[in-house]
Amino acid sequence: MDRNVHTFIGCDKEYSESNIVIFGAPFDSTTSYRPGTRFASAAMRSESFGIETYSPYLDLDLVSDARVFDGGDLELPFGSPEAALGMIQDFTEEILADGKFPVMIGGEHLMTLAAVRAVAARYSNLHIIHFDAHADLRDDYLGVKLSHACVIRRCHEILGDDRIFQFGIRSGDRSEFAWADEGHVTMRKFDLRTLPEVAEKLADPPIYVTVDLDVLDPSQFPGTGTPEAGGVTFTELREALKIALGRNVVAMDMNELSPALDHSGASTALACKLMREALLMIGGKYK
Amino acid sequence: MDRNVHTFIGCDKEYSESNIVIFGAPFDSTTSYRPGTRFASAAMRSESFGIETYSPYLDLDLVSDARVFDGGDLELPFGSPEAALGMIQDFTEEILADGKFPVMIGGEHLMTLAAVRAVAARYSNLHIIHFDAHADLRDDYLGVKLSHACVIRRCHEILGDDRIFQFGIRSGDRSEFAWADEGHVTMRKFDLRTLPEVAEKLADPPIYVTVDLDVLDPSQFPGTGTPEAGGVTFTELREALKIALGRNVVAMDMNELSPALDHSGASTALACKLMREALLMIGGKYK
Amino acid sequence: MDRNVHTFIGCDKEYSESNIVIFGAPFDSTTSYRPGTRFASAAMRSESFGIETYSPYLDLDLVSDARVFDGGDLELPFGSPEAALGMIQDFTEEILADGKFPVMIGGEHLMTLAAVRAVAARYSNLHIIHFDAHADLRDDYLGVKLSHACVIRRCHEILGDDRIFQFGIRSGDRSEFAWADEGHVTMRKFDLRTLPEVAEKLADPPIYVTVDLDVLDPSQFPGTGTPEAGGVTFTELREALKIALGRNVVAMDMNELSPALDHSGASTALACKLMREALLMIGGKYK
Amino acid sequence: MDRNVHTFIGCDKEYSESNIVIFGAPFDSTTSYRPGTRFASAAMRSESFGIETYSPYLDLDLVSDARVFDGGDLELPFGSPEAALGMIQDFTEEILADGKFPVMIGGEHLMTLAAVRAVAARYSNLHIIHFDAHADLRDDYLGVKLSHACVIRRCHEILGDDRIFQFGIRSGDRSEFAWADEGHVTMRKFDLRTLPEVAEKLADPPIYVTVDLDVLDPSQFPGTGTPEAGGVTFTELREALKIALGRNVVAMDMNELSPALDHSGASTALACKLMREALLMIGGKYK
Amino acid sequence: MDRNVHTFIGCDKEYSESNIVIFGAPFDSTTSYRPGTRFASAAMRSESFGIETYSPYLDLDLVSDARVFDGGDLELPFGSPEAALGMIQDFTEEILADGKFPVMIGGEHLMTLAAVRAVAARYSNLHIIHFDAHADLRDDYLGVKLSHACVIRRCHEILGDDRIFQFGIRSGDRSEFAWADEGHVTMRKFDLRTLPEVAEKLADPPIYVTVDLDVLDPSQFPGTGTPEAGGVTFTELREALKIALGRNVVAMDMNELSPALDHSGASTALACKLMREALLMIGGKYK
Amino acid sequence: MDRNVHTFIGCDKEYSESNIVIFGAPFDSTTSYRPGTRFASAAMRSESFGIETYSPYLDLDLVSDARVFDGGDLELPFGSPEAALGMIQDFTEEILADGKFPVMIGGEHLMTLAAVRAVAARYSNLHIIHFDAHADLRDDYLGVKLSHACVIRRCHEILGDDRIFQFGIRSGDRSEFAWADEGHVTMRKFDLRTLPEVAEKLADPPIYVTVDLDVLDPSQFPGTGTPEAGGVTFTELREALKIALGRNVVAMDMNELSPALDHSGASTALACKLMREALLMIGGKYK
Repeated sequence: MDRNVHTFIGCDKEYSESNIVIFGAPFDSTTSYRPGTRFASAAMRSESFGIETYSPYLDLDLVSDARVFDGGDLELPFGSPEAALGMIQDFTEEILADGKFPVMIGGEHLMTLAAVRAVAARYSNLHIIHFDAHADLRDDYLGVKLSHACVIRRCHEILGDDRIFQFGIRSGDRSEFAWADEGHVTMRKFDLRTLPEVAEKLADPPIYVTVDLDVLDPSQFPGTGTPEAGGVTFTELREALKIALGRNVVAMDMNELSPALDHSGASTALACKLMREALLMIGGKYK
Repeated sequence: MDRNVHTFIGCDKEYSESNIVIFGAPFDSTTSYRPGTRFASAAMRSESFGIETYSPYLDLDLVSDARVFDGGDLELPFGSPEAALGMIQDFTEEILADGKFPVMIGGEHLMTLAAVRAVAARYSNLHIIHFDAHADLRDDYLGVKLSHACVIRRCHEILGDDRIFQFGIRSGDRSEFAWADEGHVTMRKFDLRTLPEVAEKLADPPIYVTVDLDVLDPSQFPGTGTPEAGGVTFTELREALKIALGRNVVAMDMNELSPALDHSGASTALACKLMREALLMIGGKYK
Repeated sequence: MDRNVHTFIGCDKEYSESNIVIFGAPFDSTTSYRPGTRFASAAMRSESFGIETYSPYLDLDLVSDARVFDGGDLELPFGSPEAALGMIQDFTEEILADGKFPVMIGGEHLMTLAAVRAVAARYSNLHIIHFDAHADLRDDYLGVKLSHACVIRRCHEILGDDRIFQFGIRSGDRSEFAWADEGHVTMRKFDLRTLPEVAEKLADPPIYVTVDLDVLDPSQFPGTGTPEAGGVTFTELREALKIALGRNVVAMDMNELSPALDHSGASTALACKLMREALLMIGGKYK
Repeated sequence: MDRNVHTFIGCDKEYSESNIVIFGAPFDSTTSYRPGTRFASAAMRSESFGIETYSPYLDLDLVSDARVFDGGDLELPFGSPEAALGMIQDFTEEILADGKFPVMIGGEHLMTLAAVRAVAARYSNLHIIHFDAHADLRDDYLGVKLSHACVIRRCHEILGDDRIFQFGIRSGDRSEFAWADEGHVTMRKFDLRTLPEVAEKLADPPIYVTVDLDVLDPSQFPGTGTPEAGGVTFTELREALKIALGRNVVAMDMNELSPALDHSGASTALACKLMREALLMIGGKYK
Repeated sequence: MDRNVHTFIGCDKEYSESNIVIFGAPFDSTTSYRPGTRFASAAMRSESFGIETYSPYLDLDLVSDARVFDGGDLELPFGSPEAALGMIQDFTEEILADGKFPVMIGGEHLMTLAAVRAVAARYSNLHIIHFDAHADLRDDYLGVKLSHACVIRRCHEILGDDRIFQFGIRSGDRSEFAWADEGHVTMRKFDLRTLPEVAEKLADPPIYVTVDLDVLDPSQFPGTGTPEAGGVTFTELREALKIALGRNVVAMDMNELSPALDHSGASTALACKLMREALLMIGGKYK
Repeated sequence: MDRNVHTFIGCDKEYSESNIVIFGAPFDSTTSYRPGTRFASAAMRSESFGIETYSPYLDLDLVSDARVFDGGDLELPFGSPEAALGMIQDFTEEILADGKFPVMIGGEHLMTLAAVRAVAARYSNLHIIHFDAHADLRDDYLGVKLSHACVIRRCHEILGDDRIFQFGIRSGDRSEFAWADEGHVTMRKFDLRTLPEVAEKLADPPIYVTVDLDVLDPSQFPGTGTPEAGGVTFTELREALKIALGRNVVAMDMNELSPALDHSGASTALACKLMREALLMIGGKYK
């Protein structure tokens, strides 16, 4: 008798036959307002059974047109960000070493730092495309350097200037916007409209795509800890992802879903649908 | 002393003086994900007191400009879909026999089959206009033929090809889209834009309008069991209904509201408002 | 790389090395009031990580002192009770055939009928100990024979008089209480106080234990569809289970948790803790 | 075709054939903390379908053993307490004039004043038995005399000393307890234990029974605006009501259920069950 | 040791050094459907710590670019609208007398009447710009004159014809729309598009801006008692406020947030963000 | 004009005139299951206005019979437990240095370590009375030493054997119970019955009382992250506190309320009432 294992819908390939590996990074200890993103990956696995494996947008199906292994959730030590980051970095490196594409489900946005550390170690010219409502460019937050509010600043310390492209940003303190204006990163405020031009420029280098789901308008995605009115629509984000993931992307993550704030389940369902689209964009037709 | 009876707001005409009959079909036994639509009609009656009887869109009022009888809710046997369908079919036939217009509030979408059976028996050339996020064209679902996921396929077995027009469809398995592409039904994916042309072609035949409220974007209508991002707006649906109900419509239904998923009450309020508009479109000025 | 599989906490033995098999029967199509028990087994698996594997009541631990395989959830066809019962019966028979002890997590109480069918086929002298707020002795419910409200009556049709012992019953229609009074079943109303005497009498025969969690007072277990004030405490039920499971018990189930009604998670946590205790009572020390 | 009218379960007698009239008084404008009791009577009507009409405690059934008319809800003007009280008083007088027993469902506790005004006008020697967590004996609350926090003080102005008996009181300001100690009312703090003696003394005079459901412990009845830990159990209250309603009771009310605070529905279900018991105690066997 | 006082974020100036005073008016006794707006100001203070003090829209910061004193919440007597209005009027007059700009957070919309009474006494030519889904033009509501549903009608009694400009109105009874059509007020139905023209005309006179947040579409602002589908977006309202507050505005309010209906917190967060923008528009750069 | 400051009800003395200081320690970064206790102190301040300042149990009133200063909430750096502990320790030392009694509201239970560090530095013979469902005696949790699951073990490292007395413990892993059995701490499992004897023995030494509110049964206190069935009642805990706080207690804390899990508000209300009782027990009549 086999175990009846619940993976993310349609992601039931064996590790050896897969070319994409999704996994959960359930950690939210540095979240400064409402915690709860630690439950995102489990909720998405559960709720993914409310969507179909087939995408009418792409005419592709997770079962027949992609090879995704669901690696489950890492068991991360709450209260110890550096230890958690280390475990994620190791896991990401293992996936990369096996020639597979890592897709991480957060968790809070700080987790991105771990994956970027792993990917940057392998790809010297790594660029980041970053979708978010928040700049995440603080140098520290209440004295803490390893905070969700500083994650892109920490990534910049690894990659340096001209490597990070932000979209949809509409919240931060004055210093973050000023620092971006100094040219360290390229920030598109409020919407995603400059993405096609940016994508054109980034035809060659390896790219890490990080999606903080709160880039979406809270009407479409209320289920997150710090909702910021004035965001983009699902359709805009889906189309932007199609452009971004059409580049030489080598890893991605999706984070900041907080299921306990998602009474109707609509935010979790949206995240699942966007994940399906992303997985098919990355790995469609056994690419 | 009279009973103080709670009908849907403004629908307090006697049966004999009415030309429209609304009633609830509280059944959701075949719902495959989150059940709860059985409570929709009761919730709509309750929450309808939060809206007005007057429509500033149509400059018509349910009290003075329409004649609607609220027949209450049928008592349907959970766990026995065929028995439930039979009771709804009988009730619909009685309304039609009395020369009145039936408006059913679901419940799950399978209930539409019962009403279509009754209406098709009376109108040989019946057509269906179908608003939905989901194709509902499966031949069976886990071996079950009488499932919400198959309801339009079952209707097609009654009506045949070229009679069913679907709008807003953005979810289904590959086989459903393929079957539609074979020409059995006319499916408009993602939006409602082709409705005016379709409506023009359908100037004469009797039409059944079925509204699965999940055709709406989950931002506007989170209170449903299987929310699908990327839907239409309330305004788009209201305007589409105005076009559709301007044809030779002989019956309609509205379904898939799930009140327990509607924490704020906004989805139920929207359903009530859309129902008011629909009732006035159908029966405005004692038409 | 292994999948990171989520079983009920501490129930991660292989099938071959196990002597107990737990599995979920997620079905609630005949629920006549608030549905949602279909999500109980998944919620219990998730929430079980909030409790410990060790019982200070029994000084036993699921990891070291029991051998339980978690068989996951069956995929049951909503809207088709007979088909669902058939699948559960087959699964239960397989477990029994392999000499293991089946522990089913409902789902609605009707699912018990399937397991009883399987167990009764193997044990000719089967008795039932039944904990519940509701008598479940109706002959039919709105014309439906396969209803949660009739499940013990259906079991009686298999086992006959003098085989069924009910505890904690405090709701039903007059006919159910009258039928019990005729002597078909032995019903203890309101509390569990006669259990020790009953257990003494039932020293030898094989016993099926079915626990409808709404036997508990709603203060302790609000997360169920039809809460009935005036029930028993967790401590009373735990102690009663210890007595009952000390007999020659051959199968058991626990049902009617409805996670969507359990805002705080306390009902799900209680169900997990009671399940841990039950598993240790059944299988403690590799018994 | 008849309307399918939803009354409180089993209370579907015609007015003329009834001897008990229940009605809702949905008003909560003076509630000083969390409002919402205005929705109690509608919620109880709805949720009453989750309980049975038969009581195994009393071996009586609402359908066959009582004659109750459900008069629906009064439409009361929010923001105008005196006007609301006037409407309730008029309605209660009409019921009394027809020789029937009024049972009011609040709303906030202030509504009791209206019914007491009507009853006291007819019964010169009226006494009150009052179950509550709160003394409700303030002379005014923030300068307002017609406040839920003053309702028993207002009743005392009508009835005078030695007529009011309070049970379960565990909250109030010092002045309320001091005023009670002066002998104006008889207050039993914390529990109901002196009720049998009080009931014995009150064998003859007409009695009004008012039940503020927050007398119950919040574990059993969380669905109320100002929960006070340390209350009584459902069983204690049910047994107390049996004693109280066995006297010469001429009217009663039950109030302070706040459905929006009752996520699981267990508080509303308890209120319905207690109402069923009360109706059967008052009117059992066509008394 | 100082108290650690929680003001609205960034509004921690002393009264003497401030030129804007925000305060809460927690009252909702006349709310005719779902009450709860009394908790809005407290919730906004709490949740304001989830947003930043800096606005990337205006490049201004509450801490460095505005001088706002948070006066806390008035303690208003529930059940007594006239008394509550009196207290608010007095408080507003005190602020005006000190040469400061009052910003009131409701509470229900009736509270606006109190502030308008105070402001109109000081500015003889006062005009009102009113954003709302509801006309609020009834002469009375169930006989009550001091009702949220009548508030603009009451304001009209003070100001007279040609002084009130309404935007976004999409709900009311026929008489309200008819009365507006008679020319007493200027009503823009459904959207805000005529605001620029109106603002141009209102270059000189003193203006009171009242924002009923339910003018927003319920998708963006579900957290309100009477959600009306078909509203405006956050971006539209923010831009409209920028135009309106660019005039000679002398006072403003924001009302009808109902936190208990805002499960995700997104509505409260939106209200906080809009308040930040409004405060910066009014008082940016120590204007 | 004064700020209208919201303290915990009745705790509005100036620092200089107070002898008790309550403050919040909003931190939950190491919580291993459902986070959210960071919001407890703010929620308790808010909800405290639903209770009275007068205790009918003690016949004492916070306003007239105690001198409590509410120091507000510390601003603690999420994700950095050691830094947070340092800030709390400093703050506690300041209170102690001023001869006042510190009462901390958590937050997660780890925060107790900070206060114990401060108190133990001043009182060499410090003992701890610990109410909890969980032993909290792990040496580490997933490798983390500063975890809520290890807090009493960390306190033991400061105080040594025979100083810590635990009550109500009913959850932990086997090693925790074994370690307690070795005699390092005195653990009373399941209930509080041995407290009177323990209190008698502890007549002289200085005592720190730490109350993890999950010692209560989840029926009475569902609003906590890891509810454990089988706990004590409010009345039992209130009476136990009266005994414990009658000793030479020098500091106390109350923790693990998680407001987001407290839908009805009853858990927060209970915590407020228990805090009122505790403050009056500690400081009643200007003791």
